[in-house]
Amino acid sequence: MADNLFADGCAFIDEEYIPIAEARIPILDTGFLRSDVTYDVVAVWNGKFFRLEDHLNRLEKGWNRLRMKPNVGKEEIREILFECVRRSGLRNAYVEMIMSRGIDEHGSRDPRRFSNKFYAYAIPYIWIVKPEDQEPGIHLVIAEKAIRIPATAVDPTIKNFHWGDLTRGLYEAYDRGGYTAVLPDSDGHITEGPGFNVFVYHEGTLITPASGVLEGITRRTVLELAETLGIPAELSEFGADVLKEADEVFITSTAGGIMPVAKINGKTIGTGKPGKITTLIRKRYWEAHDENQWTTPVEYT
Amino acid sequence: MADNLFADGCAFIDEEYIPIAEARIPILDTGFLRSDVTYDVVAVWNGKFFRLEDHLNRLEKGWNRLRMKPNVGKEEIREILFECVRRSGLRNAYVEMIMSRGIDEHGSRDPRRFSNKFYAYAIPYIWIVKPEDQEPGIHLVIAEKAIRIPATAVDPTIKNFHWGDLTRGLYEAYDRGGYTAVLPDSDGHITEGPGFNVFVYHEGTLITPASGVLEGITRRTVLELAETLGIPAELSEFGADVLKEADEVFITSTAGGIMPVAKINGKTIGTGKPGKITTLIRKRYWEAHDENQWTTPVEYT
Repeated sequence: MADNLFADGCAFIDEEYIPIAEARIPILDTGFLRSDVTYDVVAVWNGKFFRLEDHLNRLEKGWNRLRMKPNVGKEEIREILFECVRRSGLRNAYVEMIMSRGIDEHGSRDPRRFSNKFYAYAIPYIWIVKPEDQEPGIHLVIAEKAIRIPATAVDPTIKNFHWGDLTRGLYEAYDRGGYTAVLPDSDGHITEGPGFNVFVYHEGTLITPASGVLEGITRRTVLELAETLGIPAELSEFGADVLKEADEVFITSTAGGIMPVAKINGKTIGTGKPGKITTLIRKRYWEAHDENQWTTPVEYT
Repeated sequence: MADNLFADGCAFIDEEYIPIAEARIPILDTGFLRSDVTYDVVAVWNGKFFRLEDHLNRLEKGWNRLRMKPNVGKEEIREILFECVRRSGLRNAYVEMIMSRGIDEHGSRDPRRFSNKFYAYAIPYIWIVKPEDQEPGIHLVIAEKAIRIPATAVDPTIKNFHWGDLTRGLYEAYDRGGYTAVLPDSDGHITEGPGFNVFVYHEGTLITPASGVLEGITRRTVLELAETLGIPAELSEFGADVLKEADEVFITSTAGGIMPVAKINGKTIGTGKPGKITTLIRKRYWEAHDENQWTTPVEYT
């Protein structure tokens, strides 16, 4: 495969498959100039897509709610994603699909008249928290200098690139010696961080924020696995106090799975090592990546 | 000039000048994938830049506050903008400059390590409200389905592409028969709309929102012109009631100047025609585009 031009990744742009290093989008695309876009990321693990239909369904729901009218549908997108992965040859991949409002092709500023554009790419799997940093667990900071964009402004359940607040949180985390940050809302309720949902195991129950957050597929997987494992779980609002007092804390993302938190704002959580519940769910999460009910294999050539 | 490849616009990307139709940015740029970017737009009118230094200063302030460390500075950017306009031959141009966090070139997700990227382009002048629609005045809708992203989440004084809320407002305006929308904040105070600030002339004073908005250069120009014209003006919070009761309302943007509003939520403002104060300031605004103290001529070849 040394001569595979797509070995570092393969993108799909304007009906063409392109090596990732050369993949470019029009500078005038309002997906860039207005961040008028919804996207999704699905993982390929050991040559199999994980929960592909759930990711495709969320993307479709998002573009419908943004009132886009793309000229591709889920069937074609599914084929494109398979082709991106197949060409790259990647067995573990981070596969992104992007639906953009696109470009004004009629001399208008009216987004209803734009030609929506679909982009996709497969690159090597990305870890928000690298495997070697997951074992000790990370230091999570509760941002004080930024709140999460409220759902009344931008709906977080339509997965989007409005990350200005999350990036502010990330810089604050670095300044305070943290690995990453979670943001509160204007009422002080915990929401989410740059690319992840958050869970606490507190007083015998697994809790994740009910609203103001992306309804993550990994988050959903955790809730489903908890049910099969007999672990009580609920969606609920909670503040910084619960996060700090929790027995266990972990963050979840397609980019890294179930990632243990060892410290919050400099204070050790539980034993300071990945807890029992976290470890159990993480184990089941990765096992699920090889189980037929969750996965769709790629046919590599 | 019929054979000028840049006649429709000229972009600057990766040290090259490119016809706008071919101008593309890397799909992996976090300016796109995280909207991690600040930008500015300056007008060229009758062959002269308007308030170029003010726009350059705002861009520089923005990238510093985002803690970017670009390898170009204001001096080089100024030269690039002149060259984009010069190559295009455009006498009336919309000139955009974009500073993006750029691309991870070290296999890291840490934005501190990214190589920031500068992009620019000049295209024909854009009107948020077309001249023929400015004479009767537009129908402005006060959005009810979206609030403006609060400054505590994303700072609106760092000019940015987080337009999800503004685009929601725009669709709501269309649904309600409006031309465009202005968004309230969570307390019901009026903020701004997609690409513009708003002014009311109410009880003998010109008022524009004090906070939660971009500190627009056209907004500043209006305030400075009002002072020279002896029109009382102030920055203040106000709600939908003041907007509806005002004697005159107009919106301001580099993309269209001073644009009269004739109706708010279907109700006529003042006489229903551009008011005296609006007309006076608009006249002075366009005159200023030919005055030496505000302008910098382009040397076309």
